[in-house]
Amino acid sequence: MASRSRLSRRNFLVTSGAGAAALCVSGNAGGYTSAEMRARAADDKLTGVSKWELDTPALCVDLDKLSQNIATMRTRLGDMKVASRPHAKTHKCPTIAKLQLAGGSIGICTAKLSEAEVFAANSIGPILMTTSNVTPNKIRRAMALRKSNPQFVQAVDYAQNARDLNDAAKAAGIVADVVVDVAIGTRSGVPAGDQAVAIAQLVDTLPNLKLRGIISYDGGAQHIKGFRKRAEESLKRYEPSLRTFEAMKRSGLNTEIFSGGGTGTYNIMTKIPGFTDLQVGSYIFMDCQYLEIGGEENEDLYTDFAPSLTVMTTVLNNYFPNRLTTDAGQKALTLNQPGPIVIGEKGFRYSAGSDEFGTIQYDTSSKAYTVGDKLELIVPHCDPAVNEYDQIYGTRKDRVEVVWPVSARGHSQ
Amino acid sequence: MASRSRLSRRNFLVTSGAGAAALCVSGNAGGYTSAEMRARAADDKLTGVSKWELDTPALCVDLDKLSQNIATMRTRLGDMKVASRPHAKTHKCPTIAKLQLAGGSIGICTAKLSEAEVFAANSIGPILMTTSNVTPNKIRRAMALRKSNPQFVQAVDYAQNARDLNDAAKAAGIVADVVVDVAIGTRSGVPAGDQAVAIAQLVDTLPNLKLRGIISYDGGAQHIKGFRKRAEESLKRYEPSLRTFEAMKRSGLNTEIFSGGGTGTYNIMTKIPGFTDLQVGSYIFMDCQYLEIGGEENEDLYTDFAPSLTVMTTVLNNYFPNRLTTDAGQKALTLNQPGPIVIGEKGFRYSAGSDEFGTIQYDTSSKAYTVGDKLELIVPHCDPAVNEYDQIYGTRKDRVEVVWPVSARGHSQ
Repeated sequence: MASRSRLSRRNFLVTSGAGAAALCVSGNAGGYTSAEMRARAADDKLTGVSKWELDTPALCVDLDKLSQNIATMRTRLGDMKVASRPHAKTHKCPTIAKLQLAGGSIGICTAKLSEAEVFAANSIGPILMTTSNVTPNKIRRAMALRKSNPQFVQAVDYAQNARDLNDAAKAAGIVADVVVDVAIGTRSGVPAGDQAVAIAQLVDTLPNLKLRGIISYDGGAQHIKGFRKRAEESLKRYEPSLRTFEAMKRSGLNTEIFSGGGTGTYNIMTKIPGFTDLQVGSYIFMDCQYLEIGGEENEDLYTDFAPSLTVMTTVLNNYFPNRLTTDAGQKALTLNQPGPIVIGEKGFRYSAGSDEFGTIQYDTSSKAYTVGDKLELIVPHCDPAVNEYDQIYGTRKDRVEVVWPVSARGHSQ
Repeated sequence: MASRSRLSRRNFLVTSGAGAAALCVSGNAGGYTSAEMRARAADDKLTGVSKWELDTPALCVDLDKLSQNIATMRTRLGDMKVASRPHAKTHKCPTIAKLQLAGGSIGICTAKLSEAEVFAANSIGPILMTTSNVTPNKIRRAMALRKSNPQFVQAVDYAQNARDLNDAAKAAGIVADVVVDVAIGTRSGVPAGDQAVAIAQLVDTLPNLKLRGIISYDGGAQHIKGFRKRAEESLKRYEPSLRTFEAMKRSGLNTEIFSGGGTGTYNIMTKIPGFTDLQVGSYIFMDCQYLEIGGEENEDLYTDFAPSLTVMTTVLNNYFPNRLTTDAGQKALTLNQPGPIVIGEKGFRYSAGSDEFGTIQYDTSSKAYTVGDKLELIVPHCDPAVNEYDQIYGTRKDRVEVVWPVSARGHSQ
């Protein structure tokens, strides 16, 4: 595919999907349940099971595309002297975290303490928790985690919180590593500038805390459509964070970590002087939201990373003209927009608006669908979609090779 | 509260919420984790734990309101000679299903086979599965379920599917109970009229199937705003299903089950001659979506059932004027609209649009919030919100009495 041509998003997906060659199978396919597949995996008997034979809805990841995404990130960042510290809130899967670390990432991020605990329990060392712990119980647990895992770093964004963390670290008999979370927008973190520097200085004076630097993530910038606009706006929005980082550095504070950015800005943040690492999440899977933001080489479609994550679904109803009903609704795909893409059917408009059912409207289709046929979908937004599943099927050339538990699923605390 | 007065939705919620008296607690509260609460429950040591001490986000149900909703449904339907067969896809919790059965319901419904298997494994007998099983594996499992549980009834909406079910029932050595699913709208079921009657007749001739009647659910009618408009439209939309039921009856077919309706139409469907039972789901919990549809006595607010389900959340950030950030975003509340209601704060506009964070905007608040304060939320839409949690805390006067596993959570297959 010529990367500079302006192919439409839908055309790209018809030709790129793994499902293009094997769009659907008849209703006579097996339909292995989650439990059956776990049992087969335990007995090393997955060989030969096709993703088209899975009971549905089923969450799948194409292992070749997953590896390709890890390799792409390593290669591109290698040139730019910035590391990746992928956000594990996206996949919630320790096995994938290990692949990322083996593929050159310097650590992982987690959004919640209960997630960090799962990854640490699965032998992941370098964990940066990007949300502050503000209740006494969470602070106590965070210090226990730090005590058993010297590579655990946590965020702080209030002076009182820094003092609370210091007290808890002292009680635990440790010196805990922290980064100051500097806000972009109004969601989390301390406002950039003097207030942020003051917290860094306070941390520096507290005997049981060790300042490691700052994190600053711009959630609003990731999905700005069009690469040039996204680059311009995200760099402008990042300026106060950069000035804060430089002020900390001038004050002699430790700034060894200067972390932020995401899948939408991974090749933009690298232009920021002193920036150390990217909290990229979705690059590993991709989704409909990221596909449409456009990339540096193709303003219409973001092709830097391959859509590796899909949901298999079954057609339940074809009675009504130009409509199909499937078994994958909100509980399988979430309500995020744009809605799911049906691989291989550019005319299908899929709505996951019902709790239990997907509804498709179309004017043209590549074939006449019958009840029991299966379809493969790209999910609207990968993070919350993965959080609906207990396991993810790793496939290669459509065959299931591994069944990975989504161990931190539901760990929203 | 004068039931006929036009109180605004927000005013009602300020005065009715359990949280009105105990709006929030300081950041020094305990923060018991899910695992700690399960351990306390196993040791019978829940006494005294307040819902305000739970680690957040936490899903809670007020046990008094839950009981009240069950009693209300029984009382109101008792007058109307129609039974309730609650949809367990709402709560996914066997303990709640048992309370419903003890409270007069004649059975439960499930949307998915894997849900039905969970409830059957938890000793629930009368289960009506409202979605057809269309793949060979699901059909085989459905027959196994029917073999071990004579009260399992499943839907059918295609002639070929009826024949497939019959073959599988024969192979399992049973006669399986089925109901014909008659479509309203274009989502699931066979179109009303001749096609539906023909399937019923086919089922009646198949030796290993037993026709039990019809189901016909109008998903689009439940949330029509205003009771009179909802009644008028839903009865009109139900006419083809009623005519189908009557044609089946005239043909001498078994019509002992004529099931449908939901929380929004529970006191409307009862006007349909021959109608036997209601597939009510949300009445047990209520949510923001149902609160605003209005009831027979109050056109603005649906007060027939009490909002028993809430999510506890913690304030993480208050730096920005007229804004707060909490720890409950999409993964804790879903993206359904209208957004969550903050109990006790009528001026708060809560968005769960971020994966991990809730963001509140307000002009006025009842107090100055600080980091670590807790808030209690009514969820936008109960079914998919419950599906985000592994356990639900049953509380009475704000104290946790029970921890119930959401055993069928994630069973979307």
